[in-house]
Amino acid sequence: MYRTHNNGELKAKDIDNQVTLSGWVQKIRDKGFMIWVDLRDRYGITQLIFDEERTPKDVMDKASQLGREFVIQVSGTVIERESKNPKMTTGDIELLVSEISVLNTSLTPPFTIEDKTDGGEDLRMKYRYLDIRRTPVRNNLVFRHKVTMAVRNYLSEKDFVEVETPYLIKSTPEGARDFVVPSRMNEGQFYALPQSPQTFKQLLMVGGMDKYFQIVKCFRDEDLRADRQPEFTQIDCEMAFVEQEDVLNTFEGLTRHLLKEINKVDVEEFPRMTYDEAMRRYGNDKPDIRFGMEFGELNTVAQNKDFNVFNKAELVVGIAVPGGNSYSRKEIDKLIDWVKRPQVGAKGMVYVRCNDDGSYKSSVDKFYDQDDLAKWAEATAAKPGDLICVLSGETHKTRTQLSALRMELAERLELRKSNEFAPLWVIDFPLLEWDEETNRYHAMHHPFTSPKPGQMELLKTDPGAVKANAYDLVLNGNEIGGGSIRIHDKETQAKMFDYLGFTPEEAKAQFGFLMDAFQYGAPPHGGIAFGLDRLVAILGGQETIRDFIAFPKNNAGRDVMIDAPAVIDNEQLEALHLKLSLDNK
Amino acid sequence: MYRTHNNGELKAKDIDNQVTLSGWVQKIRDKGFMIWVDLRDRYGITQLIFDEERTPKDVMDKASQLGREFVIQVSGTVIERESKNPKMTTGDIELLVSEISVLNTSLTPPFTIEDKTDGGEDLRMKYRYLDIRRTPVRNNLVFRHKVTMAVRNYLSEKDFVEVETPYLIKSTPEGARDFVVPSRMNEGQFYALPQSPQTFKQLLMVGGMDKYFQIVKCFRDEDLRADRQPEFTQIDCEMAFVEQEDVLNTFEGLTRHLLKEINKVDVEEFPRMTYDEAMRRYGNDKPDIRFGMEFGELNTVAQNKDFNVFNKAELVVGIAVPGGNSYSRKEIDKLIDWVKRPQVGAKGMVYVRCNDDGSYKSSVDKFYDQDDLAKWAEATAAKPGDLICVLSGETHKTRTQLSALRMELAERLELRKSNEFAPLWVIDFPLLEWDEETNRYHAMHHPFTSPKPGQMELLKTDPGAVKANAYDLVLNGNEIGGGSIRIHDKETQAKMFDYLGFTPEEAKAQFGFLMDAFQYGAPPHGGIAFGLDRLVAILGGQETIRDFIAFPKNNAGRDVMIDAPAVIDNEQLEALHLKLSLDNK
Repeated sequence: MYRTHNNGELKAKDIDNQVTLSGWVQKIRDKGFMIWVDLRDRYGITQLIFDEERTPKDVMDKASQLGREFVIQVSGTVIERESKNPKMTTGDIELLVSEISVLNTSLTPPFTIEDKTDGGEDLRMKYRYLDIRRTPVRNNLVFRHKVTMAVRNYLSEKDFVEVETPYLIKSTPEGARDFVVPSRMNEGQFYALPQSPQTFKQLLMVGGMDKYFQIVKCFRDEDLRADRQPEFTQIDCEMAFVEQEDVLNTFEGLTRHLLKEINKVDVEEFPRMTYDEAMRRYGNDKPDIRFGMEFGELNTVAQNKDFNVFNKAELVVGIAVPGGNSYSRKEIDKLIDWVKRPQVGAKGMVYVRCNDDGSYKSSVDKFYDQDDLAKWAEATAAKPGDLICVLSGETHKTRTQLSALRMELAERLELRKSNEFAPLWVIDFPLLEWDEETNRYHAMHHPFTSPKPGQMELLKTDPGAVKANAYDLVLNGNEIGGGSIRIHDKETQAKMFDYLGFTPEEAKAQFGFLMDAFQYGAPPHGGIAFGLDRLVAILGGQETIRDFIAFPKNNAGRDVMIDAPAVIDNEQLEALHLKLSLDNK
Repeated sequence: MYRTHNNGELKAKDIDNQVTLSGWVQKIRDKGFMIWVDLRDRYGITQLIFDEERTPKDVMDKASQLGREFVIQVSGTVIERESKNPKMTTGDIELLVSEISVLNTSLTPPFTIEDKTDGGEDLRMKYRYLDIRRTPVRNNLVFRHKVTMAVRNYLSEKDFVEVETPYLIKSTPEGARDFVVPSRMNEGQFYALPQSPQTFKQLLMVGGMDKYFQIVKCFRDEDLRADRQPEFTQIDCEMAFVEQEDVLNTFEGLTRHLLKEINKVDVEEFPRMTYDEAMRRYGNDKPDIRFGMEFGELNTVAQNKDFNVFNKAELVVGIAVPGGNSYSRKEIDKLIDWVKRPQVGAKGMVYVRCNDDGSYKSSVDKFYDQDDLAKWAEATAAKPGDLICVLSGETHKTRTQLSALRMELAERLELRKSNEFAPLWVIDFPLLEWDEETNRYHAMHHPFTSPKPGQMELLKTDPGAVKANAYDLVLNGNEIGGGSIRIHDKETQAKMFDYLGFTPEEAKAQFGFLMDAFQYGAPPHGGIAFGLDRLVAILGGQETIRDFIAFPKNNAGRDVMIDAPAVIDNEQLEALHLKLSLDNK
């Protein structure tokens, strides 16, 4: 047996007991006649003491040769510590060592194994196994485990059944983003890895499973943006015989349970906001409502004056920045530069200083008097001391730009508090969204989403106006879940595929099995999927999902630790009936 | 809201209440003036009654047009049932329907949705979503969920942390069996899907996670045998600072917990048997010890007579078949034919009838007298009324053949009772096994398995005799789990790779990251992996794992429901830098 206790559990009550511990050497203080070693494992740190007067000489010698990250096993007597450390759970005691054995040596690690390390991102990715030894990283993984256990136990108690759906499936119309797997036994054919278990969970509803969930890996071969991973984890859920209200209530319950269980936070009933309202008030379909700075639309009070920029704009809209009047001219110019960056894309920004004496000073004083500006202040709820920032232009673009500014300012003003939780349902999403590239409408959610009752006909006359029974759960400005009520009859589904540009043959080839299934008594059903990586990061009070993934990939989709992907040999390619077709050959 | 109750919960206490139910039409009995419908969902069946005198005419009309598997919603009053059905949880009541709405119609299903169906295997696979509507199939999936929840909660309480390891990894030396995934972003390179998370769980131990588990999909591209799946699920576990004894105790605890929690069965401390003993007593490294028929070795009592077949055999070994003396000559001849089938491969079989009067009658009476045969009976523990079956030849082959016969006879004699559980640890596996094909030794478990202390040197002189710290958990004649104590220092691991025929370059290319990790203070560690599909099937009292998988693949690795794998289009191939290389092109 390597240990009788772990390094986080010995307390005053254990004094005088003989114990055996194992772990890593975290720190050594060697005074020659006396050596102290901090011994670390997942559970904590225990201080070891080697004392020339009480420790056998050979043990003393071995102790003097230890190095950082050596793995050792020690036995001895628990004794009271002279200078107690109330910050450590084991701070009342130390172990007077009488036996030691070195289980493994260690080279000097490429970075320090401390809460704050000197290792850069790349080095830490390459030696991820050493990074995981650091308490904050390891704690994140333990935290993730706690969250998934809480999810599983909650849903299980609510009669949800976790069902494993297959990983080797078929390529879908969003095929361009599928990872595929060549089949050796079925020559020239490929499996695809699932982007989500969407169709399978619907088939489980057709199969009468009634309430399904699964915590499951999904795969998407996109050009990676920061903080995207080619493989990611979903909490995937589906229910039969439900309307939108049932789904919202169920998963509001789950989310509230998590906040209570994991974060010890009670939250009120989640507010609900339509997509249209979210766009109008926050310029964003996942607004962070932990802070104000709501949009004030200024068309009625700012147009029809002599300022042409505003007159010809589809939308004039502003926000009040709390305390922003203290910004210097230079700071404001920098803000203007910021909104003009290509990533934001505004053409310019109008601003109004709200002075403490109730007067206003704006960058467009030529066109607007104090009364006009007072109306702007009213519309944006600006108070003396604030700065009103105003953008204008095409509605959707302008809103998106102002939303970016709002989030940036909130970040600078530290209004986004990681220990504050503001969940929100955004509902009534449009069924379709216009795609500039292909010049046509696409399903905003996916082609299985049901339009609002009675709106199917509207598809022909005003497609962009059709709303769906689709909803997102937003937490602190992040979409943590999204779902919809699904189409459950074959005719509607066929019409939808037709509308989205599938020929009947394509629809049959891709989704014939689902259309078939709908002929045999499919129940009404709907569901939701949560992005687990993001959810865990937010509950953990952090923004970077990579910190909550044991072995993440980098932005090029590479695992730099194991050096994957890699070439495979020719025999293997042959067995798969494949040849490489490289650009330079 | 589609329902106030499910179809399994209404009882006598609900009589006179107004309720709404939804579900599938299971059965219709139409007497014109009175119609009874069995309404089914996952939770049960509730009987609906439509009565011309009490039900509105339009509702009556709609009821008369229902068909099997229609999805309906009904409202009405719970009333007492005239002829109660104590076998149904809802058997005291029925629902007098006042409102009905047909939520979806159904074609006639291709097979009956009953506990015993008329559908064949192929049809049920194609329409798996209808098969899942059948209670036994659905119950298997719910059962699987219960088992995984019990596993997760048990391990979690024991401080194990579930950590997700990546699915997109690198091809390994057993690469021929890897499914690979071409990378679009890394031209000419491939990920591989994991055959197990072996190296990652070891890295987590190096990373100080201490106790890891994961219920995880694994992938192996083998030519499929009956009841093998290209994707399968493991309960994967690893612990640091453990010896074999710690691992066995921990997972004996888990298994005992499952038997108690899921099957309400208490089992004694699990017996342990070395691999050598299992082979000697049962001819099998996963013996079913629910019944006797242990091997009796007969070399000393059957050789050195005039029967040459036995004299020149390496092993003569027999089993006593309980009550086998009642077999007719014809039945025994059939048994002899059975052992001579190519799948078993024996050259012949000697038998001894043990008469009720204590005398013997054998097929080799020419060579052996009653005293000789009495010694055979003693060695095989045969009793009057039994039949002794004796095989001979090369030791390992003969044992394997006799084991096949033993299992076949136990099956025929119904000695393998599905509600009886006999777990067993088989320990001290050989480190290596001889491979006839490549004419060299291979790792029996995997190249990370640690040899028994002090046996490393034996590798040079008698490799086949080296035993490993490797163990299997056997339940009712099935290997449900297997694991080992791992090598944790770089030198031993390098020697092992060398011994197994890796060049240092190959070892570095494949497992450099692991060897690197071992240089930075790797702790002693070991673990185990359970085959979840098999475990669930056995706990569920069944033999076929496919019955416990929601969407299994057939023996050609195809999902016949979604028709995967399938061809992908040329643009997709091009994006992946691949060309097909088909045999007929």
